Amino acid sequence: MRAARFYDRGDIRIDEIDEPVVRAGQVGIDVAWNGICGTDLHEFLDGPIFCPSHEHPNVITGEFPPVTLGHEMSGIVNFVPNGVEGLKVGDHVVVEPYIVPAGEPTGEGSHYNLSEGSNFIGLGGNGGGLAEKIAVDARWVHKIPDSIPLDQAALIEPLSVAYHAYEVSEAVEGDTALIIGAGPIGLLTAAVLKAKGIKVIISESSEMRRQKAKETGVAELLLNPMEDDIVSKVREFSSDGKGAAVGFECSSNQFGFNTLVDAVRPAGTIVVVAIWGKLAQVDFVKLTIKELKIKGTIAYCNTHPKTIELVASGKINLEPLITGKIGLDNLLDEGFDTLINHNETAVKILVSPTGIGL
Amino acid sequence: MRAARFYDRGDIRIDEIDEPVVRAGQVGIDVAWNGICGTDLHEFLDGPIFCPSHEHPNVITGEFPPVTLGHEMSGIVNFVPNGVEGLKVGDHVVVEPYIVPAGEPTGEGSHYNLSEGSNFIGLGGNGGGLAEKIAVDARWVHKIPDSIPLDQAALIEPLSVAYHAYEVSEAVEGDTALIIGAGPIGLLTAAVLKAKGIKVIISESSEMRRQKAKETGVAELLLNPMEDDIVSKVREFSSDGKGAAVGFECSSNQFGFNTLVDAVRPAGTIVVVAIWGKLAQVDFVKLTIKELKIKGTIAYCNTHPKTIELVASGKINLEPLITGKIGLDNLLDEGFDTLINHNETAVKILVSPTGIGL
Ligand SMILES: NC(=O)c1ccc[n+]([C@@H]2O[C@H](COP(=O)([O-])OP(=O)(O)OC[C@H]3O[C@@H](n4cnc5c(N)ncnc54)[C@H](O)[C@@H]3O)[C@@H](O)[C@H]2O)c1
Ligand SMILES: NC(=O)c1ccc[n+]([C@@H]2O[C@H](COP(=O)([O-])OP(=O)(O)OC[C@H]3O[C@@H](n4cnc5c(N)ncnc54)[C@H](O)[C@@H]3O)[C@@H](O)[C@H]2O)c1
Repeated sequence: MRAARFYDRGDIRIDEIDEPVVRAGQVGIDVAWNGICGTDLHEFLDGPIFCPSHEHPNVITGEFPPVTLGHEMSGIVNFVPNGVEGLKVGDHVVVEPYIVPAGEPTGEGSHYNLSEGSNFIGLGGNGGGLAEKIAVDARWVHKIPDSIPLDQAALIEPLSVAYHAYEVSEAVEGDTALIIGAGPIGLLTAAVLKAKGIKVIISESSEMRRQKAKETGVAELLLNPMEDDIVSKVREFSSDGKGAAVGFECSSNQFGFNTLVDAVRPAGTIVVVAIWGKLAQVDFVKLTIKELKIKGTIAYCNTHPKTIELVASGKINLEPLITGKIGLDNLLDEGFDTLINHNETAVKILVSPTGIGL
Repeated sequence: MRAARFYDRGDIRIDEIDEPVVRAGQVGIDVAWNGICGTDLHEFLDGPIFCPSHEHPNVITGEFPPVTLGHEMSGIVNFVPNGVEGLKVGDHVVVEPYIVPAGEPTGEGSHYNLSEGSNFIGLGGNGGGLAEKIAVDARWVHKIPDSIPLDQAALIEPLSVAYHAYEVSEAVEGDTALIIGAGPIGLLTAAVLKAKGIKVIISESSEMRRQKAKETGVAELLLNPMEDDIVSKVREFSSDGKGAAVGFECSSNQFGFNTLVDAVRPAGTIVVVAIWGKLAQVDFVKLTIKELKIKGTIAYCNTHPKTIELVASGKINLEPLITGKIGLDNLLDEGFDTLINHNETAVKILVSPTGIGL
């Protein structure tokens, strides 16, 4: 079968490799769609980060390069060995792409996203969604209803990132939220918040991205940091003039973060979703005097059933976020190139390794 | 009467002024002791900060310089006008030194510490504890039992800062806490945590301050950041090797803060108590991957009854923190000079404006 594999920084190849063996406790899946994530671009440009290297094989899978890429995937079950319950051949599914240490608790209330050494299928080994087939431990395979098309289903994974950021924020219905950055993560966060009855303001510097955000209808107010006085607009918009109850940093940008410190109300919360390439500067005087809370969020934990339900019930429509669909052969020239060099023209680009979805 | 008054940066004078008029709803107090706080030193060295200036009179009191200093005070009630309940002449009391906007809710569950424009008696006007007498709205006067000596009572105010920092941390019995900096605020925070059954580790760079911390007995482990590998010592000490559940930044020092980011466990909390004179640098990658929470804390809110009870019941002994007792005349040469130029030789220096306590 064909698979996109990471060899090293700047070296990703489409290879012909053996089909994966489905072991006891696993499920065999034909991949329908796999989204390209900013993390894949980071591995290509600055990696290996989550991917292993020859010097540092993955501590759990033991794999070293090349490893198959792709962690935002949907597909159709093609094999279920004896002993695996709840899934059958033909089921539409999404993969929660975790690699966790042996014995790590993964039930309700556990925090496997914080377990030391944990990593992701499609980065740290165990195959990936940028291949025709994958074998995945049944624990990480979630059935989706027919009401969710397979292309939108590939966005369940980043939607879970957004959902977990919402959980971390502890925002409640009626709150006002300010999101900085309307990339895929910012827009998905907005979609979750809107579904939960939270009033969303988005600040985005790119004109094209603001246009896209407008089409999705997820924000009640869309601001341009180059023209608008974000802080006073957010205060005006908030019910008592004190600012947003929560803020989401989805831009990796210092000015964006500074805006949150000023636009979030006293005792409010700033959730840092973005992965920053440099140290952030934080005004601790404002932090103390306003008693702000700054919280990190990483990936997700037992959120897939909730995000699947939000999409299945129609509370979130992922369709407008899909701005491109390509085959595996065009991964680098159409997919990576667009996202690296013309990021603002695209939101989510999906790849079909099998042609099932095309 | 005599009072220490702030005129401008570098200009504090001991003046002869009129005794305050006790208005309806207020209580007249003879000051017994008033502690010198880091904030007083800041006003002297870099102010006016909380103090008003001629260009910026205080927005609530309308006062401009000179204003009487001193906000950590204990005293004896000398006058109670008709209509004030619950207090009588001769009562020993402490003052919760708030100036809040008219109409600001100050009951249980309110957050008057975050109200816009709020300030402090002894900084923003309304008299101060570095004077023989003061008239204070009865709302801010707390009776103390005879079991608390008047000198220790002057530390109830900074103890309330520490108590509120503990509340903000949401630490629970059995947790491990790491405190950076064993100045008055770090030591008082340690005392509150110990009283609440939390295991305290203190890191302090000054030998003399570590010695003082040892005498108070508030820490189970005392570390020296110049010699000890704080992160591995904290991990070893914590029950499961993952690090401290909570950290308290009481040093205003970048290295101290960095230590907390590494020594606090995943999903743990760092409370920033210190007021920083410069921007802090924060590694947001660690913040996200560990899902750390960084929280600001400012002053206190409805905590005085709780701190009075902790001292009255003997759970906290404030006596070892008092390292000097002086009269009002020696405020600058013995008090301020010691704390500015030989900070590590002292913890809390108390001033007796009346001689009641001497
Ligand atoms: N915490 C997690 O678990 C997790 C998971 C996935 C992705 N991420 C991270 O989330 C971040 C966002 O991902 P993405 O794919 O949406 O990125 P993206 O680069 O596509 O989007 C960022 C957006 O921010 C905008 N922006 C930059 N500076 C701004 C400013 N000052 N004001 C307003 N807008 C500004 C940009 O124009 C861009 O549209 C990335 O850092 C990514 O690594 C985190
Ligand atoms: N948030 C609030 O409401 C509030 C209220 C009162 C005071 N404060 C602030 O709290 C802070 C502490 O006050 P204080 O009076 O105890 O100050 P302090 O200066 O007396 O104590 C700070 C201590 O930190 C130590 N230190 C410095 N760098 C260190 C490092 N890297 N590792 C270990 N120890 C280190 C110093 O040796 C010193 O003993 C100040 O910034 C003060 O302004 C805040």
